[in-house]
Amino acid sequence: MLTDSKIGIGVIGYGYWGPNLVRNFAREARSEVIVISDTRPERTELARAQCDIATTEDHHEVIGNPDVTAVVIATPVAMHYSIAKEALLAGKHVLIEKPMAATIAEAEELVALAEANNLILLVDHTFVYTNQVRAIKSMIESGEIGDLYYFDSVRIALGLFQSDVNVVWDLAPHDLSILSFLVSDKPVSVSAVGMAHVQPGQEDIAYLTVHYDNTFIAHVHVNWMAPVKMRRTIICGSKKMIVYDHLDNTEPVKVYDKGVLTDGNNRHQTLISYRTGEITAPLIQDKEALSTLAEHFADCILHHDRPLTDGKAGLEVVRLIEAAQRSLGNNGQMEML
Amino acid sequence: MLTDSKIGIGVIGYGYWGPNLVRNFAREARSEVIVISDTRPERTELARAQCDIATTEDHHEVIGNPDVTAVVIATPVAMHYSIAKEALLAGKHVLIEKPMAATIAEAEELVALAEANNLILLVDHTFVYTNQVRAIKSMIESGEIGDLYYFDSVRIALGLFQSDVNVVWDLAPHDLSILSFLVSDKPVSVSAVGMAHVQPGQEDIAYLTVHYDNTFIAHVHVNWMAPVKMRRTIICGSKKMIVYDHLDNTEPVKVYDKGVLTDGNNRHQTLISYRTGEITAPLIQDKEALSTLAEHFADCILHHDRPLTDGKAGLEVVRLIEAAQRSLGNNGQMEML
Amino acid sequence: MLTDSKIGIGVIGYGYWGPNLVRNFAREARSEVIVISDTRPERTELARAQCDIATTEDHHEVIGNPDVTAVVIATPVAMHYSIAKEALLAGKHVLIEKPMAATIAEAEELVALAEANNLILLVDHTFVYTNQVRAIKSMIESGEIGDLYYFDSVRIALGLFQSDVNVVWDLAPHDLSILSFLVSDKPVSVSAVGMAHVQPGQEDIAYLTVHYDNTFIAHVHVNWMAPVKMRRTIICGSKKMIVYDHLDNTEPVKVYDKGVLTDGNNRHQTLISYRTGEITAPLIQDKEALSTLAEHFADCILHHDRPLTDGKAGLEVVRLIEAAQRSLGNNGQMEML
Amino acid sequence: MLTDSKIGIGVIGYGYWGPNLVRNFAREARSEVIVISDTRPERTELARAQCDIATTEDHHEVIGNPDVTAVVIATPVAMHYSIAKEALLAGKHVLIEKPMAATIAEAEELVALAEANNLILLVDHTFVYTNQVRAIKSMIESGEIGDLYYFDSVRIALGLFQSDVNVVWDLAPHDLSILSFLVSDKPVSVSAVGMAHVQPGQEDIAYLTVHYDNTFIAHVHVNWMAPVKMRRTIICGSKKMIVYDHLDNTEPVKVYDKGVLTDGNNRHQTLISYRTGEITAPLIQDKEALSTLAEHFADCILHHDRPLTDGKAGLEVVRLIEAAQRSLGNNGQMEML
Repeated sequence: MLTDSKIGIGVIGYGYWGPNLVRNFAREARSEVIVISDTRPERTELARAQCDIATTEDHHEVIGNPDVTAVVIATPVAMHYSIAKEALLAGKHVLIEKPMAATIAEAEELVALAEANNLILLVDHTFVYTNQVRAIKSMIESGEIGDLYYFDSVRIALGLFQSDVNVVWDLAPHDLSILSFLVSDKPVSVSAVGMAHVQPGQEDIAYLTVHYDNTFIAHVHVNWMAPVKMRRTIICGSKKMIVYDHLDNTEPVKVYDKGVLTDGNNRHQTLISYRTGEITAPLIQDKEALSTLAEHFADCILHHDRPLTDGKAGLEVVRLIEAAQRSLGNNGQMEML
Repeated sequence: MLTDSKIGIGVIGYGYWGPNLVRNFAREARSEVIVISDTRPERTELARAQCDIATTEDHHEVIGNPDVTAVVIATPVAMHYSIAKEALLAGKHVLIEKPMAATIAEAEELVALAEANNLILLVDHTFVYTNQVRAIKSMIESGEIGDLYYFDSVRIALGLFQSDVNVVWDLAPHDLSILSFLVSDKPVSVSAVGMAHVQPGQEDIAYLTVHYDNTFIAHVHVNWMAPVKMRRTIICGSKKMIVYDHLDNTEPVKVYDKGVLTDGNNRHQTLISYRTGEITAPLIQDKEALSTLAEHFADCILHHDRPLTDGKAGLEVVRLIEAAQRSLGNNGQMEML
Repeated sequence: MLTDSKIGIGVIGYGYWGPNLVRNFAREARSEVIVISDTRPERTELARAQCDIATTEDHHEVIGNPDVTAVVIATPVAMHYSIAKEALLAGKHVLIEKPMAATIAEAEELVALAEANNLILLVDHTFVYTNQVRAIKSMIESGEIGDLYYFDSVRIALGLFQSDVNVVWDLAPHDLSILSFLVSDKPVSVSAVGMAHVQPGQEDIAYLTVHYDNTFIAHVHVNWMAPVKMRRTIICGSKKMIVYDHLDNTEPVKVYDKGVLTDGNNRHQTLISYRTGEITAPLIQDKEALSTLAEHFADCILHHDRPLTDGKAGLEVVRLIEAAQRSLGNNGQMEML
Repeated sequence: MLTDSKIGIGVIGYGYWGPNLVRNFAREARSEVIVISDTRPERTELARAQCDIATTEDHHEVIGNPDVTAVVIATPVAMHYSIAKEALLAGKHVLIEKPMAATIAEAEELVALAEANNLILLVDHTFVYTNQVRAIKSMIESGEIGDLYYFDSVRIALGLFQSDVNVVWDLAPHDLSILSFLVSDKPVSVSAVGMAHVQPGQEDIAYLTVHYDNTFIAHVHVNWMAPVKMRRTIICGSKKMIVYDHLDNTEPVKVYDKGVLTDGNNRHQTLISYRTGEITAPLIQDKEALSTLAEHFADCILHHDRPLTDGKAGLEVVRLIEAAQRSLGNNGQMEML
């Protein structure tokens, strides 16, 4: 039974990410998770053991539950569209895992459905809800970084081989959603190369390049077969450069000032020579991104605000991923967006 | 005057790299640097101050010197071809800086000239002469690494902007010569994207991909505008993975064993899941690469051996770079080799 | 109500460490936490919210509960003795946080009480239950490390200032329990220096030295006022050296082989010169130490085994800490054990 | 023959450090090295090969050379006193390696001799001449760091075993000279413990503590038998903390701001809790310390200035080392200065 005046949350999918979502919504005072579904009995059993919440193996029961105001979808990507559509048609607000859908067409339909029904549709681009990415956004907006030169992101580890998607669909949404959030310019094309070594047809390493109509360039390296774990993004501007290393607990964001150095002692005539100036790691309050996300979802529902990562932001990422996938199949050819 | 029975060396170009070459040939007992040329008086003056060797501003005098048996060319790339050609026609052995020449046609002509005249032509692919790269080569040849999956190289820093070449011509020869040395498969095509932010038309960041007719893939990130200095190459095989970090003084080469991990607790059904097993940093004797190079050049001249990095190896790198340059101009299109 | 045939656990103290203990005993199949006490209502409320277990503010109710077979004590040190004594006198097995007691006399009495009543008394020297410390122990016992030369431990961070103890009592038990576990030689004396900068009389930085009747020496640096977080122990032997860095997720234990290097090029005549040889990071299965501890406690109770970290091990650490405290008050004078 | 108006420099001792001194004085425009002595013929031969300077195996010839205005002494410590005394008595300015002398009595006599003869006596406390240590000095003097709490220095590696001194005399002068330079308070006593594992009676690991008449404390760990190389000093103040890592090429000096954090969620009542705030690595121009030292020596001679590291500074370090040595022999007892 839902506590009076709280937002009733139903969670569909209790795999790797589901428990994190449940835990964070449990802490969000204005919402309450009232039912969890998963098709696998061992997962619903785990859910009951961990959090004493009603469960079902049938997600229709979640959507049909009259106490459920909002549905959180954390299933494999292939099911996002049908479940989200059903929820929106039932008048429920929807929070959906990244990537939002398996095709542009699916994503577009969900965006349209949410708008037509005046419902909140929030895509869980988790990194956008970290204080680190927000601090970087502020620096860029303040002009401190100058004109943006490039965005270079490396997200590699010895990872899980997922059955349903390749490494691009699995990992690149993180980098591309950070990119979309930080950079206001609109990308015009994408190219991608990759290779499948373990499961035929399922890329385990890939390199994506996002092109713009100016000299800004974005590049992403995603990899399930790397010996070292790395989550590092460089954002380079004309004035300063930022290194965002998600795995560095003490200095996740470092800002490098540029200094000019002239050294006449070089092999050839040097035109310009730079050196690193002062390096600063600003104090960034540590806060779990999903906690901020849960608060934001409640805010959007209660005040009918547009989410920071709404359906359109989710669609943008799907558009980039789908173009990358086409490029993978076309020898890395540049695919227009 | 040349000491009896020593190989007389003439060095053309005394800029950034020349002093290092001179210092290492000075230590090589069977060779002796007898003359140095540079068109800039301040450089010849420095040469005299540093090493008490005869100098000239005219490289023809070096080539024409009867005591000079071998010519070392460390000028800007644009001059490599004409000077090397003149030296080979004069019957001198030639050591030439990377990249060997500015075009494939030039490189091919130099290879043919050296063969026709039975002269040694060695290209200074310095990293091939490091004990680190040689240790990696041995591991690959022994089968310890298994089938090769990918080669991923990152060579970035806040660098000098050279007047004569872009970042691809400046830095990528290092990675591509390591790649050529380590991998026996023949590349079939190259694609590259990059961007010029400071000097119009002169790329300061670029990403190269080298394609093969199997699932092996090589990727190189070269960058003059990065806040952090990195020289790191990952070589991934079916059995083990290697990380070669040239800037790590204590563990420049690390070998990662793979372990299989099964974890039923994931979001989706997992097919395969890996984890890192034992990590080993083998003991690799530290030795300056140019010292090994100087010895090898003397060996090749004295025993008329084929250099490890001969003209053909140099040509291979120029071929890759030229294809990358074409691709840069064609929106990253795949260029056949 | 306790599930049939399970070991009923009562937890006294639900502050920082209590929830971790409860979580791990919840996973241990043969035991079940049936009641939790804390004098602070907000902590018992939290306990109920987190784990749906009965609570009380009166620890006498825990000890008096007939379903409670074993008591876990996670209160401030000052209360360890009286609670543990009461529990042992009531015939309960006891697991007690480190340091075991506030004085040697207290610790001795608890050891005697447990023996007299044939009860298990286990001290939570957590690090002894990590797979890392156990792997190091195996290496030392196998003779691979050779004769032990020194143990150097650094445990520093910008920490909490606790109201009841100084940094020696708070942090050094970790290092000293690892030391006791790894090194079979018996220490003969302790010296310590330290300084209080924030709370008069409460040291926030201290250096401890433990002396033996041979050339082995142990040194511990504990510090609440350090800008960087470090948990690093070096164990040096005549054959190999180990670095145990608890904060390094990928290579927490590294083993350094020694190589001999002779270099005639030194300022003075060199007698012996070493260099690092191969470096290996063995694969160590990651497992939460408290989980191993909970299993071990259940094993000891069920089979009446002697715990790895029994009361005598706890007493040994208290003896070292008390001697260090005396030395702190005597200008760092060496205090016999 | 000395170039007109230049300071004629004679160098005594051409072992490990001598060539560095010669190279830096060669670059100093107002001075000129005119003669080098070493008792070992192979070292004088090397000197001639490297720098084309007159040599002798008899240091008396250096001191007696009328063109020699200043003598640089880079011999083993045992000979410092007699050579320096002879040079001062001959009216020569003296630059002497650290540690200045083997005993306090010797150092005091040299200080007196230099003053009586109105000669410059400079001790090569190299680190004092790094831009890093100078930047730290400025921060302390500006009040930015606040009251000093502690100085913790770790100087460890797998090192050379020198025949003439133990690890304290070899390495600790570096840390103690940095300490003396940075901290204006006067030390009152020293304690030290150490152990010899390889050469009986010659400590290869030692821990020194320097005590003051307030709550400031300094501690130094020197070690020839460590698997990892570390040169790291923490200077902690009431407002900020500094980490000086001499081996970190990009961020050798990092300044940590302190932030106050209150967290009611702890085991015991927390009095005060800190966290790290903003971290800054200031831009520090890289310059070889010996180059600054050579300039300073010339300045002092030409303008008769008092050197930054004069005989008294050298004596202070010898005083600390000698007290540490006494303490090593007295079970780590505190030795008054």
